[in-house]
Amino acid sequence: MSVTVVSSLGRMGRWEPDARGRLQQAAMQLFLEHGYERTTTADIAARAGLSERTYFRHFPDKREVLFDATHLLERLVVEAVAAAPAGAAPLDALSAGLRAGGEMLDGRRDHALARATVLASHGELRERELAKMSGLVAASAAALVARGVAEAPALLTAEAGVAAFRVAFDRWVAEAASPPLPDVVDTVLAELRIVVAPA
Amino acid sequence: MSVTVVSSLGRMGRWEPDARGRLQQAAMQLFLEHGYERTTTADIAARAGLSERTYFRHFPDKREVLFDATHLLERLVVEAVAAAPAGAAPLDALSAGLRAGGEMLDGRRDHALARATVLASHGELRERELAKMSGLVAASAAALVARGVAEAPALLTAEAGVAAFRVAFDRWVAEAASPPLPDVVDTVLAELRIVVAPA
Repeated sequence: MSVTVVSSLGRMGRWEPDARGRLQQAAMQLFLEHGYERTTTADIAARAGLSERTYFRHFPDKREVLFDATHLLERLVVEAVAAAPAGAAPLDALSAGLRAGGEMLDGRRDHALARATVLASHGELRERELAKMSGLVAASAAALVARGVAEAPALLTAEAGVAAFRVAFDRWVAEAASPPLPDVVDTVLAELRIVVAPA
Repeated sequence: MSVTVVSSLGRMGRWEPDARGRLQQAAMQLFLEHGYERTTTADIAARAGLSERTYFRHFPDKREVLFDATHLLERLVVEAVAAAPAGAAPLDALSAGLRAGGEMLDGRRDHALARATVLASHGELRERELAKMSGLVAASAAALVARGVAEAPALLTAEAGVAAFRVAFDRWVAEAASPPLPDVVDTVLAELRIVVAPA
């Protein structure tokens, strides 16, 4: 069953789906086939070959099945910011974090593309995505403050860095033959440094 | 009636409320007194001394009464970006726009503070606010493209500039004795230029 799910979404690269992953893939298939509104959590569980009770052990509601990678992204970014060299400038430390997050997403590109299609179809999901990105800004700023960066520059660095990450992500989704996401993140951060160059 | 409304929210500065403004102030009072959930559009209309039909001539639903200034902000930013000197760098043109928007909000500070309190109380409203800010990014980028800026730098400039604007806005809301919002916008943009300085 899980093999069928995987192949119908195309190659999944390094991402080996467990129950949680199977629920995410089943949800994605159903959202794409029938639309987000017309899919229920019971449908998702059935498609994944699991019980609805199992669904709710993993996700609190129908919407959250789409935002699992966002939590992982946040954790990866925060960890890599903490691990950046002691002398790194704030945006360089954050850049290491965003590259790490980008690497994870790059490993599940097919899922990311399908997810972008579902989100584009539904305003409520796009609003939730923006809220999650706002959570990533807060987490990134906190990770910088933990490195000794003052609050005001930490928040600004996080806002600018995450904005660049979102631009990179959209570009990576839009281009079929895109370079890997971490490289696009680097490119966009370099562009950001140019457009925001000191007056 | 409208005088009572005005004085109960404190001085409203240059902002002379018409029917639309009275509805906004009535909504704000009721949201603060009874909470957003427990207030109806009928309550708002009654408090403003107007019919519910009049309410719906101005706003499509209960939520939008809180987002009127956001549309005005977008228009002011776009107009000022278009009017910036021909040779201005993209971020300088946008900065002129954000200052113009900041000036408008600064003229209705009491309303902006009350609104920030209501939004903070309700996740759905915060998500809508983020969506509106994302609309401001798109409108700002389009205004820069109309000046001849290429799409990629226009989008990045808009993302970074609007992020700085949000940081400035939050700072202005948080500090009782804050300088005027346009000045805070300038300060934050200068800080942004420092944290994003070329490597």
